[in-house]
Amino acid sequence: MEHYTNVRPASNRTRGLTHASPAEVSLQAALDALGDPVRRRIVRELAGEPDWARACGTFAHLRVAKSTLSHHFGVLRQVGLLEQRDEGTRRLNRLRRAEFDERFPGLLTLVVEEPEGA
Amino acid sequence: MEHYTNVRPASNRTRGLTHASPAEVSLQAALDALGDPVRRRIVRELAGEPDWARACGTFAHLRVAKSTLSHHFGVLRQVGLLEQRDEGTRRLNRLRRAEFDERFPGLLTLVVEEPEGA
Repeated sequence: MEHYTNVRPASNRTRGLTHASPAEVSLQAALDALGDPVRRRIVRELAGEPDWARACGTFAHLRVAKSTLSHHFGVLRQVGLLEQRDEGTRRLNRLRRAEFDERFPGLLTLVVEEPEGA
Repeated sequence: MEHYTNVRPASNRTRGLTHASPAEVSLQAALDALGDPVRRRIVRELAGEPDWARACGTFAHLRVAKSTLSHHFGVLRQVGLLEQRDEGTRRLNRLRRAEFDERFPGLLTLVVEEPEGA
């Protein structure tokens, strides 16, 4: 495993990830991303914890295939809802709540407050 | 054509329509309904005019088949976004904006303010 200084905390793997800014995202893309119940569940779980507290590996309880989970994370990144960075072998997550709220006022709140299993 | 008094303004055809209250609608159903660009366009057009001003027949410019249009209206009714009633041979529409806003704050505003063709 490589070692990174504070000056460049992101690994090559993380730098290869595509991150979109919510400002560039269409309403269609946002609705498509949040139209999936597993992605809304991921968003809700992240909203309940501090930034960067959750690694991708901690979502195994959602009982979806790893490749599917990875696809969901990719969709959330592409609509500017999710930021990811690697720390050692873990990929950490941050919900870009303020930025997304500014672009789509009210939308994330509806998702976060949705009752589980609804 | 039959004649109706003010006491019972709805025709049999209208009374056969299924209308849901937004209060009963899940976020999943609302996102599914608004995930379609033609349905968002219908919503935007209705939002720009007074209640009951638009008949279903005035949406021909959307260039979708009549049966498809009818399906879209049905989906919008079923999530509590649209109220319909018949007046003679015309089926008139009302956007249930206040009720939907109360159930899903912010969501309809995003749709109404979406740039056309985005």
